[in-house]
Amino acid sequence: MIVALAGGTGGSKMVHGLTLATGQRDLTAIVNTGDDGEFFGLLVCPDLDINLYCLAGVVADRGWGYADDTFHCLEGLATYGREAWFGLGDRDLATHIHRTLMTRGGARLSEVVDDLRARMGVEARVLPMTDDPVRTIITTATGEQRFQEYLVRDGAREEIASIRAEGLDTAIPAPGVIEAIATADLIVIAPSSPIVSIGTILGVPGVRAAVAARRERVIGVSPIVSGAPVEGPAHKFLRGAGYHECSARQMAAMYADVCGTFVIHESDANEAAGIEALDVRTVTTDILMPDRASRERLAHTVIAAVG
Amino acid sequence: MIVALAGGTGGSKMVHGLTLATGQRDLTAIVNTGDDGEFFGLLVCPDLDINLYCLAGVVADRGWGYADDTFHCLEGLATYGREAWFGLGDRDLATHIHRTLMTRGGARLSEVVDDLRARMGVEARVLPMTDDPVRTIITTATGEQRFQEYLVRDGAREEIASIRAEGLDTAIPAPGVIEAIATADLIVIAPSSPIVSIGTILGVPGVRAAVAARRERVIGVSPIVSGAPVEGPAHKFLRGAGYHECSARQMAAMYADVCGTFVIHESDANEAAGIEALDVRTVTTDILMPDRASRERLAHTVIAAVG
Repeated sequence: MIVALAGGTGGSKMVHGLTLATGQRDLTAIVNTGDDGEFFGLLVCPDLDINLYCLAGVVADRGWGYADDTFHCLEGLATYGREAWFGLGDRDLATHIHRTLMTRGGARLSEVVDDLRARMGVEARVLPMTDDPVRTIITTATGEQRFQEYLVRDGAREEIASIRAEGLDTAIPAPGVIEAIATADLIVIAPSSPIVSIGTILGVPGVRAAVAARRERVIGVSPIVSGAPVEGPAHKFLRGAGYHECSARQMAAMYADVCGTFVIHESDANEAAGIEALDVRTVTTDILMPDRASRERLAHTVIAAVG
Repeated sequence: MIVALAGGTGGSKMVHGLTLATGQRDLTAIVNTGDDGEFFGLLVCPDLDINLYCLAGVVADRGWGYADDTFHCLEGLATYGREAWFGLGDRDLATHIHRTLMTRGGARLSEVVDDLRARMGVEARVLPMTDDPVRTIITTATGEQRFQEYLVRDGAREEIASIRAEGLDTAIPAPGVIEAIATADLIVIAPSSPIVSIGTILGVPGVRAAVAARRERVIGVSPIVSGAPVEGPAHKFLRGAGYHECSARQMAAMYADVCGTFVIHESDANEAAGIEALDVRTVTTDILMPDRASRERLAHTVIAAVG
């Protein structure tokens, strides 16, 4: 049984690759919910949905949202003067409406996700990191913004002064999270943001210690290639969290307590010695996952590295 | 200034015709809200939306919903096991989301409608009959159903035992309703259902008396042609309300206290004498309104009839 800790697009690619390598039934994805938020009165869980859509084979080519979706509702909301910067497609809205109705009816987020998973025909297990609301808040010179406001609405242009995850301190791991970590044959930290994705998952009380206890079975995949993020403004989040180096070694250092093995890109091979000095075994390979074949190949490398 | 009392498709055609004949600024539509209901946690007001969309020139050819709309969200909801029998299009959903958010924020329905009206560029005044929730409940041998459940989900197949409008007894006319009726040069009762559309509007405490006080300026248009409803199961609603005759004369009788003039179809000309016997002047013409030209022509006839 493989457990993956995953954020959004980068995380879903790794999760997808692992299912291609081992079959969906052998995988449990534990997914960040710090990006979640309310849009138009609907509970939207971007990272969970990206993973579910990816596993169901219905994710759009751009890496988020439903394939071949339209945006007629969002366009209509814009004509009514509503902020329409968050790309909620029409088919995608069904997921948010269904989830909102279920949670309003008393269901826990993990129950909603399992319902969506089953209805989409996904056989992998998908768990939110917690059923409790956690909301990442970004503070810049302009003030506080919700995560998606900073990233999507404002294009992550400003430097970040600080990052906090509201509700994280008192969040309880969702049912099955600690057990899955404790019993996994392999735990994969996907190449998602170490601050706002993986960092948030590890920040749920009890999770970091549970992963650290399995350190020898944990392998991380670097989200950095040639000293720059594979995608997204990871360097901004790093600086906002007080890390002024954006490198594979920096990533490994942040995971050194939980992660016995770390996979870096060939172009960062010169960092291997520095990472080994942290008592982290290093695997060097092509970590980019633009397509199905590259995802499956990287997953095989990851699985083989921890045996 | 012309006031129209209107239900959904039939009502919107008359309202549309009147604006073609006089311009939008001279018209106030007072619209039934007894068909309103919650779908997927959203407040849906079918008759108000049909009238707004029609006045904005964006109603679909079928007479309800937004033109050229898609149904991707509804299709998605069906895959999640939700009842998807009520045709909410994707663009249309924006209206329901906007309205739901406004009402949840404390706005009255009449404020929402005026906001939608302005944003759609509609110059006619559109008023809900009341800001208070009124819900038409249909009782059949099977039990109680919400109006749309009976009409749309179940296809109006069963005979109706009784009809009631929950909340109607204590509803207060929306701001402007009584004033518009009191000061109108002409009040047109559109060819909507005398039971579940016009009957509901007239049932708002104070409205029937206000219209009756203007009886000489009130003209009704029959929803019956050749003894059968122009559209919809009007005969079922009539029987459910205890009226076993489905005729132009029956319609006129139901409006005789509020309506000094009644327009019937040429094919029902033989009923004119019976209607005149109710002290209701009768105008005989083609009352079908399939297109723009026929709506405008009927509107001119209606306006000329009361002078």
